[in-house]
Amino acid sequence: MFQHDAMSLGETIAAIQPPDEAAERAARARLDSLTKPPGSLGRLEEIVARYAACRGDGSARMGRGAILVFVADHGVAEAGVSAYPQAVTVEMLRNIGAGGAAISVLARRFGYDLRVTDVGVATDTSLTPFAGVTYARVGTGTKNFLSGPAMTQAQARRALEVGIESARSTAAARATLIGIGEMGIANSTSAAALLALTTGLAPAQLVGRGTGVDDTGLQRKVAAVEAAIARHRAAAGNGIDLLAAVGGFELAAMAGACLGAAAARAPIVVDGFIATAAAAVAIKIAPQARDYMFFSHRSAEGGHALALRSLAAAPMLDLGMRLGEGTGAALAMNLVESALALFHQMATFASAGVSGKLE
Amino acid sequence: MFQHDAMSLGETIAAIQPPDEAAERAARARLDSLTKPPGSLGRLEEIVARYAACRGDGSARMGRGAILVFVADHGVAEAGVSAYPQAVTVEMLRNIGAGGAAISVLARRFGYDLRVTDVGVATDTSLTPFAGVTYARVGTGTKNFLSGPAMTQAQARRALEVGIESARSTAAARATLIGIGEMGIANSTSAAALLALTTGLAPAQLVGRGTGVDDTGLQRKVAAVEAAIARHRAAAGNGIDLLAAVGGFELAAMAGACLGAAAARAPIVVDGFIATAAAAVAIKIAPQARDYMFFSHRSAEGGHALALRSLAAAPMLDLGMRLGEGTGAALAMNLVESALALFHQMATFASAGVSGKLE
Repeated sequence: MFQHDAMSLGETIAAIQPPDEAAERAARARLDSLTKPPGSLGRLEEIVARYAACRGDGSARMGRGAILVFVADHGVAEAGVSAYPQAVTVEMLRNIGAGGAAISVLARRFGYDLRVTDVGVATDTSLTPFAGVTYARVGTGTKNFLSGPAMTQAQARRALEVGIESARSTAAARATLIGIGEMGIANSTSAAALLALTTGLAPAQLVGRGTGVDDTGLQRKVAAVEAAIARHRAAAGNGIDLLAAVGGFELAAMAGACLGAAAARAPIVVDGFIATAAAAVAIKIAPQARDYMFFSHRSAEGGHALALRSLAAAPMLDLGMRLGEGTGAALAMNLVESALALFHQMATFASAGVSGKLE
Repeated sequence: MFQHDAMSLGETIAAIQPPDEAAERAARARLDSLTKPPGSLGRLEEIVARYAACRGDGSARMGRGAILVFVADHGVAEAGVSAYPQAVTVEMLRNIGAGGAAISVLARRFGYDLRVTDVGVATDTSLTPFAGVTYARVGTGTKNFLSGPAMTQAQARRALEVGIESARSTAAARATLIGIGEMGIANSTSAAALLALTTGLAPAQLVGRGTGVDDTGLQRKVAAVEAAIARHRAAAGNGIDLLAAVGGFELAAMAGACLGAAAARAPIVVDGFIATAAAAVAIKIAPQARDYMFFSHRSAEGGHALALRSLAAAPMLDLGMRLGEGTGAALAMNLVESALALFHQMATFASAGVSGKLE
């Protein structure tokens, strides 16, 4: 799937520009001319202004919405940290591609391009490929990071570049708003380890029930994350080291997608707990990517609220969701599009002949 | 606009049935069969289950969405409680009908029927009617409730029946989800007075800046609400008395729409602060209507969070909006529809061949 004009990690980081303040000012001026009290659309106005700044376009034009879902397996699943068997990863890969998963329904409903990529599911189906699935496998699941690094440095870079390329090609196909999501049994354990090492928050604060582990499973998860950060603490200084130590292929690909989208000036909509861990790693690698991130929702997962706070992120939605796949991102993207529709289609005080504020 | 089969207030109240628990159980059973961990769609699952219960339909089928916007003027505007001149009410009535207002844009975007009704704007335009506006005028604005009742008992009943009929005919035209919104300069003062008298909360807690009054205007609003509740305290025991004393024609019509929708088993989506005041009056008139109400968002207006708490209402969205017109309701209705799409279109564990939870 790598094309000739694929950008390296270094080139991608170098290409990330700061948001355009003039475009933001132009958008805010138009917002204040619309037939509503200034600021009365609340967060929707902030969303429009930031979108315009990211795009470098005071008219805040909308192209297509796209959702990138990365799927992979995790060696740490063998530690009994998930309520579901590892086979569910490949089964859900097929289900997402076939249109039956939650994200499939939402992408269809909102008219978003859905790109589902196998970056390293334990069962290799690439020879008899599933419908609707892109294959860019970096390995056959990660290794268990309780007994060594999850992947090699080369694999971490490769998975990052899969994400970069996915975002780059999506933006080239007119996507101006890119959501990221994931599926992978046991990946909330990997995400908690990444967040513990990037934020300094304690494992017990970050670990939640994921897809629904019981109390014993929860204790196993906390113990696994504590063991992982004790073993891999030296990796905390560097994003690629972190991914290699305790990451997952889909987590690395999501981090890469954040960087690729930022380089393409496409605002990126981050899904829930696991996508937030990937976003935190992307910020570690390239802090200037933060400006392009919209955080979609506060999930029901234990440490998500704390992780968001550590990134100074105010999520748009708070619906107690904890499904992943990009489902929260899709709902938030639809909210962004609604904000843009208001911006583009509302009448102005002048055009509608509506009186202004009393002096 | 009154049709021969219009229902009286008494008939409407008598027709409100309790939600259907069997339909709710059926919906929850299907929710648990879909390819996601049980409960992982959070609030969206609760929304589907409540929708099914209200509709008395375990399949939770969706008909059309409709938004009812009621517009009227307020005598209390002469007390200097709004940042905008009273002329803005009739100007916005025209703008909503013409498609240029925020609610016009959202209704168009989501494919919702938008019915805008003049229930008593100060300027009578019914002889040269605005495009897209229904006229059911109950008066030429209310009287200033600082010097007497806002309207007569007969007007309060008439305005309630306008709302009932509007919801009834909308449901008869296949609407299964009905949002309510409003426009009317000075109506946040009327809403605060209604909420003070129904909830017992203090005016200073309930009054906010509305469309954006300055500090002096805010003091005038608090003083007006304090004077109003001192004068009209005797009305607090009865919903119709309350509307006559300190209400508005659009507030009464929204309360009627709540009753009419509940009688037609159409879940009603309540907009912001002002619509919440109308919902509180509807509950005062018919407590069983509460079960049919979905509260859309927590607005930026001062007392909305407190008012919602007094109704045990957990809003779906919290976006700092304070525009009214039904804009928060429209966004929440779109969320309800997304929840229903997931319910109807997701694959089941059985159909997709996905493994269940580990024992």
